[in-house]
Amino acid sequence: MSIKKPVTCDLIIFGGTGDLARKKLIPALYYLFSDGRLPADTQIYIAARKAIENEEFENFLRASCQENLPKNDFSDSDFQRFCEINCYIQVSTDQLESYHNLQDRLTSEEPRDRLFYLAVPPAMFGPICSFLDSSQLTGPNSRIVLEKPLGSDFESANEINEAVAGSFSEDQIYRIDHYLGKEAVQNLMVLRFANSIFEPLWCASHIEHVEITLAENVGVTGRGGYYDRSGAMRDMVQSHLLQLLALVAMEPPANLEPESVRNEKLKVLRSLRPVTDQQIDCDTVRGQYTAGVINGEEVRGYLNEEGIPAESSTETFVAIRAYVDSWRWAGVPFFLRTGKRLPAQQSHIVVRFKSVPHMIFEKHSDDTGYNSLVITLQPDEGIKLFLTAKVPGKGMNLRHVALDLDFNNVFRRRSWNAYERLLLDAIRCDSTLFVRRDEIEAAWNWTDPIVDSWKNSPNPVKPYAAGTWGPGRAKELVEELGFCWDE
Amino acid sequence: MSIKKPVTCDLIIFGGTGDLARKKLIPALYYLFSDGRLPADTQIYIAARKAIENEEFENFLRASCQENLPKNDFSDSDFQRFCEINCYIQVSTDQLESYHNLQDRLTSEEPRDRLFYLAVPPAMFGPICSFLDSSQLTGPNSRIVLEKPLGSDFESANEINEAVAGSFSEDQIYRIDHYLGKEAVQNLMVLRFANSIFEPLWCASHIEHVEITLAENVGVTGRGGYYDRSGAMRDMVQSHLLQLLALVAMEPPANLEPESVRNEKLKVLRSLRPVTDQQIDCDTVRGQYTAGVINGEEVRGYLNEEGIPAESSTETFVAIRAYVDSWRWAGVPFFLRTGKRLPAQQSHIVVRFKSVPHMIFEKHSDDTGYNSLVITLQPDEGIKLFLTAKVPGKGMNLRHVALDLDFNNVFRRRSWNAYERLLLDAIRCDSTLFVRRDEIEAAWNWTDPIVDSWKNSPNPVKPYAAGTWGPGRAKELVEELGFCWDE
Repeated sequence: MSIKKPVTCDLIIFGGTGDLARKKLIPALYYLFSDGRLPADTQIYIAARKAIENEEFENFLRASCQENLPKNDFSDSDFQRFCEINCYIQVSTDQLESYHNLQDRLTSEEPRDRLFYLAVPPAMFGPICSFLDSSQLTGPNSRIVLEKPLGSDFESANEINEAVAGSFSEDQIYRIDHYLGKEAVQNLMVLRFANSIFEPLWCASHIEHVEITLAENVGVTGRGGYYDRSGAMRDMVQSHLLQLLALVAMEPPANLEPESVRNEKLKVLRSLRPVTDQQIDCDTVRGQYTAGVINGEEVRGYLNEEGIPAESSTETFVAIRAYVDSWRWAGVPFFLRTGKRLPAQQSHIVVRFKSVPHMIFEKHSDDTGYNSLVITLQPDEGIKLFLTAKVPGKGMNLRHVALDLDFNNVFRRRSWNAYERLLLDAIRCDSTLFVRRDEIEAAWNWTDPIVDSWKNSPNPVKPYAAGTWGPGRAKELVEELGFCWDE
Repeated sequence: MSIKKPVTCDLIIFGGTGDLARKKLIPALYYLFSDGRLPADTQIYIAARKAIENEEFENFLRASCQENLPKNDFSDSDFQRFCEINCYIQVSTDQLESYHNLQDRLTSEEPRDRLFYLAVPPAMFGPICSFLDSSQLTGPNSRIVLEKPLGSDFESANEINEAVAGSFSEDQIYRIDHYLGKEAVQNLMVLRFANSIFEPLWCASHIEHVEITLAENVGVTGRGGYYDRSGAMRDMVQSHLLQLLALVAMEPPANLEPESVRNEKLKVLRSLRPVTDQQIDCDTVRGQYTAGVINGEEVRGYLNEEGIPAESSTETFVAIRAYVDSWRWAGVPFFLRTGKRLPAQQSHIVVRFKSVPHMIFEKHSDDTGYNSLVITLQPDEGIKLFLTAKVPGKGMNLRHVALDLDFNNVFRRRSWNAYERLLLDAIRCDSTLFVRRDEIEAAWNWTDPIVDSWKNSPNPVKPYAAGTWGPGRAKELVEELGFCWDE
C-alpha cells in the first residue's frame, strides 16, 4: 500500500467558521479526537477572516459540537482537551501577509504534515493555492482537500484543476465527495469484492437494472444564486450520482491502492454511453418545481425562491436513463434521479436482479420471485437484501422479505459519519475515497453535452409540483422498459 | 396440481399408543385441530392391541399433549373438543376379525377418505396391508403412511414394497421421512427456486463442497436389538442423509407436482458415484463408540449397551465422501456424517461457496472472504447466510457475519413441526414430501455395496470415544481435500 504512516499533522481549515466547518468538520474532528483516533499531537487551525477572541472561539467550537452531536456523545472534559488542540487564526485569503503569518505559526523544529482543507468557494481555490505556494507552504509534506463544486463544466473545472495543479501535484490533492465516505457505500465494495457470491451475479446476465436516487425534500435553502447557475445536473449528477454509479459498476480492482480503485472508476465513467441530441428527450427528463405541499406544509415554487430570476429555466430535477457500454453492463439501464422538493429526503442505490426465469411456486403477489440489493444512504444508512421466502406453515406460500445487511447491530458500534472517515483518510494520506482529476473530467465530458442539448432543445424544462416525484415523464422513463422507481 | 381437494377423512393410526404416536403424531394432530387446519369432520382412530376404557384413553391423549407441547399451547377447552374427534379402537393386527370390526366402524353413508398410518415395525406392513385389502378397506379413497425403516437392504425393502404394493398402488403410499417435513428444508427449496440469485451459484463453478451432518449425542436408547441389525448406514444414511442430499443437489423441477420433484431427487440418487471396493477405505469411515463423557456425564460404550452382542461390529458412526456425477456437481465433494454419542445433538447442511478468487482486502482472519449457507435442522431449525462485511469505522477491517434467513422472526409465527406438515399433506393427498419407491431403491442401491465392502474389508470398524466427533480418520476425510467439518 502506498499509504504512509501518519506523521504529526497540522490541519488548517480555510472557511473554518462557515457552515460546512461548523456543522460537519468540527463535530467530526471532535469525534475523531475523543475516540483517540487522531494521530498524537495533531493541531487544528481554524482559519477565517474575522478577528475572534479566545473566548468567542471556544464558544464557537462548543456550539458547533453541541448543536451537531447527539447529547450523549458530548463530554465536557473531552471538549476541554479538544479545545487545546484547536486554535483560531485570522486569515485574509487574498493577502499574502496572512500566509506569511500562517507560515510562522506552522513552522516547527520537527517535520510535520500539513493538510489544508478548503471549505471556501471554488473561485478561491486557485488564489489560495498560489499564495500557499509563494509562502513555501506546499512542500511534499503538504496536502490539500477541495470541496465541490469543482467548476460548472469541463472547461471551468479544468481551469480550477490547472490553478491548483500549479501548486500541488495530483497525489497531494484530495477532492472530497462525502457520499464516498458513507459506511454503506464502503460496505458495498466489501460485499462485492470480499464475498464470492455477489460478483458472479454482478453483470448483465443477472442484473435487470440499477437505480440511483438522491432525493431531497428541501428547496434551494438560501443558496439560490449558486444553485440557479448550477442546477441539479451539475450540482448532483456530475458529482455524487456518477461517483456512486462508478462504484456500483466498476470492475474488481487488482488491489486496494488508491490508483487501482480510481482507475476502475474512471473506466466506468469513460464507458458511459453519450446521450445524443436525438436521444435527449427520450433518455433524460429535467424538471423545475412549482408551488406545492411537503409534509403538510405549503411551499413556494422555484421561481419564487429568493435570488432566482423570474424567467429561470434551471432544472431542479433530473432523471436519466444511462448505459455503461461494456461487456459487463451491456443493455442494463442505470436509472439516475435527483431533485429538490421531492416528497422525501431519501437516497438509495437499488440493484435489481432479474426475475426467476421459471417460477414453479404460485405467485401470491407481484413482488415474489425477484431479488434486489438496496443500499440506503439517506435518511439512514443501510444495506438490505430482498429475498423470497416461505411463509411458515402449510403449503408453499411465499413472501418477499428484507434481510438486513446493515451491520451496525452485529457490531454494536456507532457508525462513523462520512466526514470522520474522509478527514482521517486525508490525514493518513489514503486517497482511495477521493476523486481524481481525470474522473472529474470524464464526468463533465458526459454531462456537458446533455446540458448543451437541453439548451438547444425546443422542449422547455418540465414543471412538477413540490412534494411530487418530479414530472410525469420521469415515471415513463422507467415504465417504458417495464420497471418502476423504488419509492 | 394433482392434489385433490381434501374430503372428509378418517385417520387410523396403527401402533396408536406407541412412542411415535404419543410423542409426535397426537401432539401434531392436536395442533392441527386447535389451529382449525384439519378438514371439517375429520375423525381420528387410535388403534392398538390393548383393551382401553374411555377414561384411560382420554388420560392417554391428555398426557400425550401435555407432555409434548409447550404449556402455553395447550388449552383445556380445545382439548375437550379434540377428544371428541378421537376414538380408540382395539385391533389385533394379525386377526382378520379386527379388520372386519374396523370396517364396520369406518362405514358411513357419505364417501370418506381413509388414511392408514402404520406406526408399527415394518415386518407388519405386508400383513396389515393384506388384511386391509381383504376387508375392502383399500379402495381408491384409501391411502397409507409408512414409517421407516423400510427394510435393511435393497432386497428386504423390495419385499416390503412388494407386499404393500399388493394392496395399495404407488400413488396411495406415503413413505414418511420426517426430515423432509422440516420448515428449514422446505425453505431451502424456496430459496433455491423462488430467488434468482442462488441458482446461478448452485453448481461446481461456485460451490466448493457440501456437508450434511446428522449428529446425535444419545446412544441406542433401548433400541439395541434393532439398531445392532441396522447400524448408522442403514438407519440414517440410506434414508435421511440421502434424502437431504437429493434436495440440495437436484435440478430445478419443471413444476411442483409431486412426481416432478421426486423425479429430480431420483436423478440425483441415481447419479451418486458408486463407492468401489478400492475406494472404500479412502472414501468412507465407520466407527463404533466406546465409553466416554457427554455433557460431563460418563456413558458406556456401544458393546456394553443393553441388547448388543459383545462381538458386534455394527457401526454407530459413518462418514462418507460422496460425489454426484453430473454436469452440475462434477468434482464437488459431498461430506456425509452421522453418528451416535457425538458431542452434540446437531444436524445441519452446509453449502460452502468457493473463496474469493483474488482477495484485495487484508485478511484479518481465516474466515473472511468466503461464503456459506447453513441450514440447521437440530437443535433448532434455521437458515443462515455467512458473509464478509466491513467493521464500521476506519480502514477496511473485515469480519465474517451470519445473516439470519430464519424467517420465524419476520413472520412472527410459530413454526410447524415436521409431523404437522406431513400429516396434513397426507390428509390433503400431497405426496411431494414423501419418498417414492424408486427413490428408496436407488438409495439402497448406493448403500448396499458400501455395507458389503465393509463386511469384506480387512479393516475393522474404528473405535471412537463417546463425546468425540468419531474416529480421527473422519477428520482426515475432509482435511485431505483442504476442508474441515462445521462443528
